[in-house]
Amino acid sequence: MTSNENIDLSQYPHIDRGLEGIVAFSSRKSFIDGAKGELIYAGYNIDDLAPKSTFEEVCFLLWHERLPNADELKSLHADLQSNRELPEIVENYIKSTSPKSEPMAVLRTAVSMLADFDDEARDVSPEATYRKSIRITSKIPTIIAAFDRMRNGKEILKPLSEGSLAFDFLYMLNGERPGKQAEKVMDMCLILHAEHGMNASTFTCRSVCATQSDLHAAVAGAMGSLKGPLHGGANTAVMNMLLGLDKGDDIAAFIKERLAKKQKVMGFGHRVYKTFDPRAYHLRKMAGALAKEVNMEYLYEWSETIVKVMKEEKNIDPNVDFFSATVYYSMGIKPDLYTCIFAMSRISGWTAHYMEQAANNRLIRPRQLYLGEKNLEYKSVDER
Amino acid sequence: MTSNENIDLSQYPHIDRGLEGIVAFSSRKSFIDGAKGELIYAGYNIDDLAPKSTFEEVCFLLWHERLPNADELKSLHADLQSNRELPEIVENYIKSTSPKSEPMAVLRTAVSMLADFDDEARDVSPEATYRKSIRITSKIPTIIAAFDRMRNGKEILKPLSEGSLAFDFLYMLNGERPGKQAEKVMDMCLILHAEHGMNASTFTCRSVCATQSDLHAAVAGAMGSLKGPLHGGANTAVMNMLLGLDKGDDIAAFIKERLAKKQKVMGFGHRVYKTFDPRAYHLRKMAGALAKEVNMEYLYEWSETIVKVMKEEKNIDPNVDFFSATVYYSMGIKPDLYTCIFAMSRISGWTAHYMEQAANNRLIRPRQLYLGEKNLEYKSVDER
Repeated sequence: MTSNENIDLSQYPHIDRGLEGIVAFSSRKSFIDGAKGELIYAGYNIDDLAPKSTFEEVCFLLWHERLPNADELKSLHADLQSNRELPEIVENYIKSTSPKSEPMAVLRTAVSMLADFDDEARDVSPEATYRKSIRITSKIPTIIAAFDRMRNGKEILKPLSEGSLAFDFLYMLNGERPGKQAEKVMDMCLILHAEHGMNASTFTCRSVCATQSDLHAAVAGAMGSLKGPLHGGANTAVMNMLLGLDKGDDIAAFIKERLAKKQKVMGFGHRVYKTFDPRAYHLRKMAGALAKEVNMEYLYEWSETIVKVMKEEKNIDPNVDFFSATVYYSMGIKPDLYTCIFAMSRISGWTAHYMEQAANNRLIRPRQLYLGEKNLEYKSVDER
Repeated sequence: MTSNENIDLSQYPHIDRGLEGIVAFSSRKSFIDGAKGELIYAGYNIDDLAPKSTFEEVCFLLWHERLPNADELKSLHADLQSNRELPEIVENYIKSTSPKSEPMAVLRTAVSMLADFDDEARDVSPEATYRKSIRITSKIPTIIAAFDRMRNGKEILKPLSEGSLAFDFLYMLNGERPGKQAEKVMDMCLILHAEHGMNASTFTCRSVCATQSDLHAAVAGAMGSLKGPLHGGANTAVMNMLLGLDKGDDIAAFIKERLAKKQKVMGFGHRVYKTFDPRAYHLRKMAGALAKEVNMEYLYEWSETIVKVMKEEKNIDPNVDFFSATVYYSMGIKPDLYTCIFAMSRISGWTAHYMEQAANNRLIRPRQLYLGEKNLEYKSVDER
C-alpha cells in the first residue's frame, strides 16, 4: 500500500517549484524593475551610484537605508580600515590550505572561523550585528588575497589599512598599490554586485538569521549558496568559456558554432531582466577603458563581438557576469576567484538583509508533503 | 514621496510570515502526524525504530528509503568506522580554539574545513554525495569529542574505529569504553533526532543544495540554522533552567513560581505536536533507567514532577528537548554540547534531504516586495 495513492498534487501549486512567485518578504533594501532594466539600492538608482558613489558609501546606504554625511562616512572608513587584519589562527589556516582547495570553500571556512575570535559572535543584538557586519566586511578581502598569494607561493601581505577596501584588496592581491583607474574599476564592481533583492544566497542568509542564529552562521550559509553554479559561479564559467580561445580566432564563428550545437553561451540572459542588465551597462563601459590601459583590447573586442552575435542570433543581452569576467581577467585576477569577489561585495547586502530580518523576525519554515509509505512493518535485519 | 503609498499589503498573504503553511516540497523522508503524536521515517514508525533499530540502520533508511539487509548494514558499518579520523589540519584547528569558543561554531567551521581534504568536495553527483554523506557523518562525533577534550585540558583521542558511532563517540568523549546501557541510550537519542520533516535547518540545507552547491556547503549552512535558539538550541536551555536548582529544592513550587511570573518553562509544547511528542515518550523511558544506573535519580524525579505540574497547570506536554537534556546530563555531557549532538544525529536527515533535493532540483528563491523609495536624488557627500 502506498500512502500517496489518493493525493492530488494539483492541490499543491507551489510544490517543488522553488517558491517561485511567492512574495515572502517585504524589504527596503533594493528594487529591481526587470522590464525597464532598473536597479535601485534603498532609493538610489545604480546609474547614479556606479559612477558617483563608493562601495563604502553603498555599505552605509544598505545598512542604514540612507546615505552617510561626511562625518559618518569618514568614521565608517576608519572602522573598515582598522579591522582588516586577520587573527593569526585564521591566517595559519589559510596557509595550511593547498592550491587544490576551492577558493569559496576556504573563504567560507575562514569567515566561519572568525566567530571564534569575535567577542560578540553570539550577540544577536542590532548593535553587535552592526559592528560584526563591519568586521566581516573588512576581513573578506584580506582572506581572499591571502589565499591567492599563498597558493601562488608568494608571501601573504598585511593590509595597508588605508584607502578603500578595493584599494587594499588589490594591494594585498598584487603586492603593489593599484593605480587610480584599477581602484575605481574594482570599486565599481563592488558597488554593482552589492545587493540584488531576494537572490538565493540572501534568502539563505535570512533563513539562518530567522532561527535567531548569529551573523557568522548566516554569512557562512549564504556563502555556501553563492558558490553554486546556478548562483554566483556564473562569472567564472564565462571566463572559462573564453580561455579556450586564441587571439587570432574568429569569435563570431565560435559563438555561432556553440549555438548551432545547442551549447550554452555563458553570461547571457537573466531571470529578472528582460532588457539590458543595468549592471552590465556600467561594466561594459569600464571594460573598454581598462582593456586599453592593460593592452588587452582583444578581450574587449571579443566581448563586443559576442554581445553583437548574441543579439543578432538570439536577441538576448549580456548579464552582469559577462562583463565582470573580462574586467577581472584584464586586472590579472584568476577566474576561480571571481565568486569570492562577488562575496566580498554581496556581504553588504547579506548583512543588510540580516539586520532587516532580525528587526521583524519570524522563523522561516515552509511545509512538505509526504509521499512515502506510512505503515511498514519493522523486521529484524536477519529477516530482510 | 514614498513609493509604498499605494501598496495594499493584504494582497500579499505570505509576506513576512516565514512561509508558514506553504507546501513547498514533496518528500519521502519523514511524516509527522501532530494530532496523533506519530513520527514516521521513510515508512517506519519511530515507535518501532527507537527500541529495535540502530542509528546506522536509520542512516541507511533515510538515504535509501528502505532498510538495509545484513550485508548492506555490515558494509555501511565498515564505511562509517573507517572514516572517523580527522585530517591533521582539522585537528590542529580544534586544538587552536579556546574554551570560550562556541561548540556549534567550532563544529560548523571544522565541517566546512573538511571540504579542503575531500577529493570529491566539488563533485555533486549522487554517487559522490552519498560517499561524502558517510564521511561527514563519520567525522562529526570525532570533532565534537576532540573539542570537548581539548577545552578541558585532556588529550584528544583517536577513534577506536570499531562499534557504533554512539559507542565511539562516548569513548572519545570520556576516554573509556561505554557500557551497553550508555551506548544504547546514546544510540536511541541519535535515532530520535535523525529527521523531522521540513524544519529550519533542513530547509536551509535544501536551499543551499538548490544552487547546485556541494554537500559541505549545505551542511555548514544547516548547522548555522540549527544553532539558533528558535531551533536546535532548546535542549541546552532546558538544562540551564534546571542547573540553578539544588537537590533539596521544591521543584513543583519552582515551576509554579516561573509560571506565575510568566517565565517560560523550557522543553514544553511544540508547533507540530498537539499531544505527547513521541520522541519524548521514548526518551522518558530511557531517562528513568539511566538515572538509576548513574545515581542521579533526583534528576529524573525532577523531570517527572515538572511534567506533572505542567500538565496540571497548563495542560501541555514535554517535547523532545525536555528529556534529551536530562538524559545527556546524566551521561556527564556538558549542556553546551547538546546542540552538537543534535547535529551529529540530524546530519542523516540533512544529507537525505540534500539527495532528494538534488534529484529533483529547482532553485529556491521566493520574491520580496520593495517598500522603500525609488527616485531619490544622489547628492555628493558634501551636500548632505
